[in-house]
Amino acid sequence: MTEAIKRVAIVGGTHGNERTGVYLLKKFEQTPELIRRSTFDSLTLLANPAATLLNQRYIDRDLNRCFAAEDLANPELTSYEDLRAKAIAAELGSIQHSPIDLLIDLHSTTANMGLTILLSRRQPFTLKLSAHLNALNPAVRVCCGIRWGASSPMLRSLVPLSCALEVGPIAQGVLNASLFQQTEQLIHAVLDYLEAINQGHSPVLPDQLTLFQAIHSIDYPRDSAGELQAMIHPALQFRDYEPLHPGDPMFLTFAGETIAYQGESTVFPIFINEAAYYEKGIAMVLTEKQQVAITDA
Amino acid sequence: MTEAIKRVAIVGGTHGNERTGVYLLKKFEQTPELIRRSTFDSLTLLANPAATLLNQRYIDRDLNRCFAAEDLANPELTSYEDLRAKAIAAELGSIQHSPIDLLIDLHSTTANMGLTILLSRRQPFTLKLSAHLNALNPAVRVCCGIRWGASSPMLRSLVPLSCALEVGPIAQGVLNASLFQQTEQLIHAVLDYLEAINQGHSPVLPDQLTLFQAIHSIDYPRDSAGELQAMIHPALQFRDYEPLHPGDPMFLTFAGETIAYQGESTVFPIFINEAAYYEKGIAMVLTEKQQVAITDA
Repeated sequence: MTEAIKRVAIVGGTHGNERTGVYLLKKFEQTPELIRRSTFDSLTLLANPAATLLNQRYIDRDLNRCFAAEDLANPELTSYEDLRAKAIAAELGSIQHSPIDLLIDLHSTTANMGLTILLSRRQPFTLKLSAHLNALNPAVRVCCGIRWGASSPMLRSLVPLSCALEVGPIAQGVLNASLFQQTEQLIHAVLDYLEAINQGHSPVLPDQLTLFQAIHSIDYPRDSAGELQAMIHPALQFRDYEPLHPGDPMFLTFAGETIAYQGESTVFPIFINEAAYYEKGIAMVLTEKQQVAITDA
Repeated sequence: MTEAIKRVAIVGGTHGNERTGVYLLKKFEQTPELIRRSTFDSLTLLANPAATLLNQRYIDRDLNRCFAAEDLANPELTSYEDLRAKAIAAELGSIQHSPIDLLIDLHSTTANMGLTILLSRRQPFTLKLSAHLNALNPAVRVCCGIRWGASSPMLRSLVPLSCALEVGPIAQGVLNASLFQQTEQLIHAVLDYLEAINQGHSPVLPDQLTLFQAIHSIDYPRDSAGELQAMIHPALQFRDYEPLHPGDPMFLTFAGETIAYQGESTVFPIFINEAAYYEKGIAMVLTEKQQVAITDA
């Protein structure tokens, strides 16, 4: 028997210009009955209020890279986001003794990732949750991120169970009503699932889940000064989750030359042309498409 | 006989997070023969280098609202963009005695405006140029902006003849290779037209041009504190240039209620859900679709 989920945190505005989460939080704060369920408490957390106010991703640095244990313990880190991370960690605790059982982190992306459940780790509980969400709506895709070491810098690493919702394509600073509604429905599906589990009514789950496992990221072609030399190829733009075969077009130089994918196996790129990843040296993240047994999970 | 065009300025990065123009300028600066023509000089101008470096629209305020004559003459305006506007005005002159005959201002938008020629005024020369570009590529649409008073705050108002290229949908901070190439082709078509005119080979033009004349802008529904109450309705999202009839869905509240267009006549909205216009109180700009005689222009 799964242990009961007693407290759920819904987090938005970890990146201040990802407006879907920001406005969903406002809605939930104005009408808290929407996220109320009988068997657990739901709380909302606007993670980066200053960046949200300015409609920027961050003030000094990416908040979602400020949660490594050694950074949280480092008193010399005093940027706005470092201080904010420490305050959030004090509120949400750390994974060993968090008052939160499960965290839903709301994100959007300029990549065409539709409705994506992004897991940090393969945990039976969140894999089952993901399989349920995918069974409810086959358009929901499930990814497992690149594994971090012992200490992950992401906000959701503070709590025992978590998933990020990545929804796109949405331009930064913009609300897309259709994707807003679909994200809200997905949150309700998560909360309803947790309620059912807590009440001992586990839904029938599929035997298998298609999981896109992140392998590594690819940077844009750059010159020795780091300057961009090419763009995502038009044949790849908005083709997140579609197979990319060796030799397929990957980039287009400013002069109009095609650069092909040089890998040896077919991969499934995601986060293609995410605006915030130019500065991180990420043009896309390559994944492998895997079948994961849910009964074994 | 039209007076010869002797100097053309191609301006990019007026908004630092509109990357198409920024990278087209870099390309033209590295391979200046691309914009070289025999009968006129072409120069490039990166309008807002500091905002471009930070990949932000602006540092202190929107540069493209800093060019009103009274602001340029006001020594008390000393923000980064105010100083930059004064420097650009010193370089490009003012409309009465500018060393530039025609200016092409490169912009992108998160709205689905495809390839748009945006004219500030109805001038025979730029109407003919626009008719030519539309005849070459019927996907090119031509808009005339809301008229400003005696003093316009836009960069392109400094010079006698100008057009802005508005290309979208492109998320801020992102390069879209296909739209990059289409924008470049459009610039070449402008330069080739000017060359032909200078050489006395005016192309055969259509008799009429479809012109979308901006009438007024519409703000999002907001509460008394200015807080957003609704989003662009899914039925209107990405439908720039399509007819909006009285009673058609316009906004969707966060609670899911549809707000209909209340006007009395059919209009053609543009700049629908442009990210940078939330702060300006503009959800879209309504236009009238007009036929303009080119022979009379």
